[in-house]
Amino acid sequence: MKLLHIDSGILGEHSVSRRLTAAVAAQWTADVPDLDVTYRDLAAEPLDHLSGAVVASGFADGAAALEEFLAADVIVVGAPMYNFTIPSQLKAWIDRLAVQGKTFRYTESGPVGLAGGKTLIVVSTRGGFYGADTPLAGLDHQEAYLRTVFGFLGITDDLQKRLDVPVVNPVTAALKTAEALVAMGLSHSKLAYPMPRKLV
Amino acid sequence: MKLLHIDSGILGEHSVSRRLTAAVAAQWTADVPDLDVTYRDLAAEPLDHLSGAVVASGFADGAAALEEFLAADVIVVGAPMYNFTIPSQLKAWIDRLAVQGKTFRYTESGPVGLAGGKTLIVVSTRGGFYGADTPLAGLDHQEAYLRTVFGFLGITDDLQKRLDVPVVNPVTAALKTAEALVAMGLSHSKLAYPMPRKLV
Repeated sequence: MKLLHIDSGILGEHSVSRRLTAAVAAQWTADVPDLDVTYRDLAAEPLDHLSGAVVASGFADGAAALEEFLAADVIVVGAPMYNFTIPSQLKAWIDRLAVQGKTFRYTESGPVGLAGGKTLIVVSTRGGFYGADTPLAGLDHQEAYLRTVFGFLGITDDLQKRLDVPVVNPVTAALKTAEALVAMGLSHSKLAYPMPRKLV
Repeated sequence: MKLLHIDSGILGEHSVSRRLTAAVAAQWTADVPDLDVTYRDLAAEPLDHLSGAVVASGFADGAAALEEFLAADVIVVGAPMYNFTIPSQLKAWIDRLAVQGKTFRYTESGPVGLAGGKTLIVVSTRGGFYGADTPLAGLDHQEAYLRTVFGFLGITDDLQKRLDVPVVNPVTAALKTAEALVAMGLSHSKLAYPMPRKLV
C-alpha cells in the first residue's frame, strides 16, 4: 500500500498543516504494515508555474509528480489557506496532475475522472471559519476548490476526507504544535477522523 | 489617470485573454487622454511562489508589483481558468498585493480593504459555462475567487467588471482572434461593457 504525503505550507517548522500531515502519516505508518510512504515538499522544492513550454513538453517536468500520484492509494495533502485559496505551489502541483488521458478524459457524455479508488486526506488550515454552514462559506476557494478539482480527477467527495483546522489567529496559532491544537479544543475524535480504518 | 494591464495566460499569441486585455487597454487608451499604462506579463516574467523568505523580507520581491497596483486607477486583469481556478502566476501576483497595512487592515469589527476606489476589469476566459445561473457555478474558483479576494482588498463587487468569454473548445477557440470571437456571437455591447465611460 502506498501513501503520498504532500506539504505546501511555507512557514517551515511553524506550519500547522505540516505538523498535522506528519501526524496523519505517522498514524497510517503505525497502523498499516509495510506502508510505502513517498514525501514531497512543495515549498522546499517547488514546481515552476505551469507554462506554455511545460504544456508543449507534454508535462515532462511534472512526470515524477504525476507518477507518484497515480501510484498512490492514499494521498495526504497539507493545504493551508493563503488569501482565500491554496498556495500557488500546491496549484502548480495540481497543474501537473490534471493531464488528459492520465487522470481524466473527455467522453461524449462529458469529462470522466480516471483517478478514482484513491483516498484523499486534505489537511486544511485557515485563519477563520469557512464551513458550509457559516457566512464565509462563499469565500472558501481552498477546501471547496480541492473538492472540485480532485472530484474532476475521479476522487469523488466520498473518497475525500478533510481535517479542517480553523486557526483563528494565524500568527500565534501557527506556533502551536498539533498537540497544543488538540488541547485547545480540537477533539481527539476530530483529529482522528482521517486516520486509517484498521486494515488487518 | 493610470491603467495597470496584467496578463497571465500561458499560451502566448494563442491566448484569448491576452487579445482581449489588449483590446480593452487599447480602447481605454483611445478614450482617455494622457492615460498612463503600465504592463506586466506574469507568464513571461513570473513572480516566484510566495515563500517564507518572501514573507520574512516584508514582501521585498513584490514591492514593484504592489506599488503598480496601489498607483493604478484601473486594473485590467487577464484571467484564464486553468483547472477550475486562476493560473498560479496570477495567484503569486495576488499574494504580493495582499499585504496588511497596504491593501487591508484588521479592525475590531473585522478586516477592512484599503484598495477601494479602483476599477477592476477581469477578462475571464474558460472552457465552459460557469455562470451563477448554471449547474457548474459551484466549480468556479476563478471569477468567484477574484471577486472574493479583490473584495477583501476593498475593490467591492460594484467596482469590479467582468468580461466573461466562455471558450467552449479551448483548443480551437484559443486560436481565434478577439475579432473572431465577436463574429462568433460575442455582441459588441458585451465586449464594450468594461470600456471606460467617456470622461471628457
